[in-house]
Amino acid sequence: MASAEVVDAVERLRGVAVVTPMLTSTEVDTLAGRTVWVKAENLQRTGSFKLRGAYNAVACLDAARRAPGVIAASSGNHAQALALAAHLHKVPATVVIPADAPAAKKEAIDALGARIVSYDRHRQRRDEIVQRIADRDGLTIVPSANDRTVIAGAGTVGWEMLQEVHDLAAILVPVGGGGLAAGMALAASGHHVKVIGVEPAVADDTLRSLRVGRPVPIPPPVTIADGLGHTEPAKLPFEINRQLLADVITVSEQAIAEAMAYLWRYYRSAAEPSGAVAFAGLLQAADRLPDGPVGVVLSGANVDWPAYRSLLDIAMQRTERETDAAAAPVLR
Amino acid sequence: MASAEVVDAVERLRGVAVVTPMLTSTEVDTLAGRTVWVKAENLQRTGSFKLRGAYNAVACLDAARRAPGVIAASSGNHAQALALAAHLHKVPATVVIPADAPAAKKEAIDALGARIVSYDRHRQRRDEIVQRIADRDGLTIVPSANDRTVIAGAGTVGWEMLQEVHDLAAILVPVGGGGLAAGMALAASGHHVKVIGVEPAVADDTLRSLRVGRPVPIPPPVTIADGLGHTEPAKLPFEINRQLLADVITVSEQAIAEAMAYLWRYYRSAAEPSGAVAFAGLLQAADRLPDGPVGVVLSGANVDWPAYRSLLDIAMQRTERETDAAAAPVLR
Repeated sequence: MASAEVVDAVERLRGVAVVTPMLTSTEVDTLAGRTVWVKAENLQRTGSFKLRGAYNAVACLDAARRAPGVIAASSGNHAQALALAAHLHKVPATVVIPADAPAAKKEAIDALGARIVSYDRHRQRRDEIVQRIADRDGLTIVPSANDRTVIAGAGTVGWEMLQEVHDLAAILVPVGGGGLAAGMALAASGHHVKVIGVEPAVADDTLRSLRVGRPVPIPPPVTIADGLGHTEPAKLPFEINRQLLADVITVSEQAIAEAMAYLWRYYRSAAEPSGAVAFAGLLQAADRLPDGPVGVVLSGANVDWPAYRSLLDIAMQRTERETDAAAAPVLR
Repeated sequence: MASAEVVDAVERLRGVAVVTPMLTSTEVDTLAGRTVWVKAENLQRTGSFKLRGAYNAVACLDAARRAPGVIAASSGNHAQALALAAHLHKVPATVVIPADAPAAKKEAIDALGARIVSYDRHRQRRDEIVQRIADRDGLTIVPSANDRTVIAGAGTVGWEMLQEVHDLAAILVPVGGGGLAAGMALAASGHHVKVIGVEPAVADDTLRSLRVGRPVPIPPPVTIADGLGHTEPAKLPFEINRQLLADVITVSEQAIAEAMAYLWRYYRSAAEPSGAVAFAGLLQAADRLPDGPVGVVLSGANVDWPAYRSLLDIAMQRTERETDAAAAPVLR
């Protein structure tokens, strides 16, 4: 039985979040030597699982607290998610992003009706700015991971997976701040399924922290999985993950790009690098998984076309199989 | 109430076909001036809606008829669909494809365990070959559209759409042989929803045929929507479409490529050109649609990466919007 917080979030998200499908491929099953279910959460509104946590967080605020609006610092998926969550609740959203963030990201946030506040990331501290505006305008800060309601919202991904497939032996999930992994772990509580986190090898802050039992910082990582480039796990999800995660696997940058190519080839599904990390874990560490069917969370799709094209061009070449199909008989 | 054939097909496909999601985008809703639901049938197993018809057809055969196997002529989505449908029923499939078909297509069919028979498309007649092998080996021919059970299977796409969204005013659906459109029309019978077919303007055999009330041939069309390049509507679906389709819209080649770019941009969803045709219809002929929410069938995703990349590169440039977001205030 999933934790009550997750079940409550499921109710709040009904009719709001897309119940994303579980994709299968006979070719991937053969490659992995087991049944593989890919949870296509890249099809979620705003292009990532983040909508679930942001919406649940806003929904959990009482009306008086919610009315003045919500605020977050993020130039990524959480920003878009919070903008839509606020829009759906008819309250204002403020998003604090670096002045040099890509125009496309600003546009996407702007299109969802959020107020954008830019800052100079070389000279100003993001969290101080957020706090200052929140205090001044009476806004509620919605963190991207370090919040119980955000974690529970993310957990609804796992709830849906376990509703649809009853015999999953493991679920692979990308780990950045750790909110999604923690939510999945809460969703899986009481089920016989191991929740396994996957991190870029160059951004292994959660793995290192789990080894010593407390959050420890790493130097700012450089990874194509920009959504997972955290320097330290968030406190609240870390506490949950420390108790409930079965394992953490790390994957190379190359494996992440190759996973994007495989996701295209076998599912025609577009993953951003962060979103492909769990699939990379499947390809790279199948021997560390328990026997039985495996679920893999494809967590997001927010990558620009030029970046996607460049990564796929390279990865496609690397993963191209030899054409070894026997010459077909020609009927005479 | 959908036709009984479609409802029966829904039961047969339970647990076999992916219940594909309906995607939404606030930006597309704004562009189209209405709520738009995109049925992401490109996520179906084998990459297109064709699995539904092929599986339903094989399932409807009695065991003795089914045992020797099934056969079809197709180098496209129907071939892959029939190969998987036969595999799932544990009977052999034979697929007749031109000797010069792309290696990737042969590989995909081969990987699903079907026997491939090649022929010289300049010197041999496809349908004669199919008939000869079927007679010799006792196989059942499963047409890609001209079969009642194939049409009913395709209709389950529409059944799912109408189950999920109750107030659709119209459904846009690509038209090639006409099987999908006919199936959708059967699924919609008794509902207040107009089923509208969309064809490439250069492959408007169904529109021309509907105008004169009987199937009329057109010269072999050249269209990027290769799955819709029919010279004549199939008889059985045409009869249904003649009675039940509300309208047929045609779209330019350029509009099809642009639709692929929009589907990427707003849904990160990969459509093959044939699969994007209905979305092109939405963009090009919104004024011919009834008021109210519209469903759009994204019917397939089977396009090679190099072809997809080339088409998107061009279409992305054409559809790029001016960045007109007002400069965001910098907090001082």
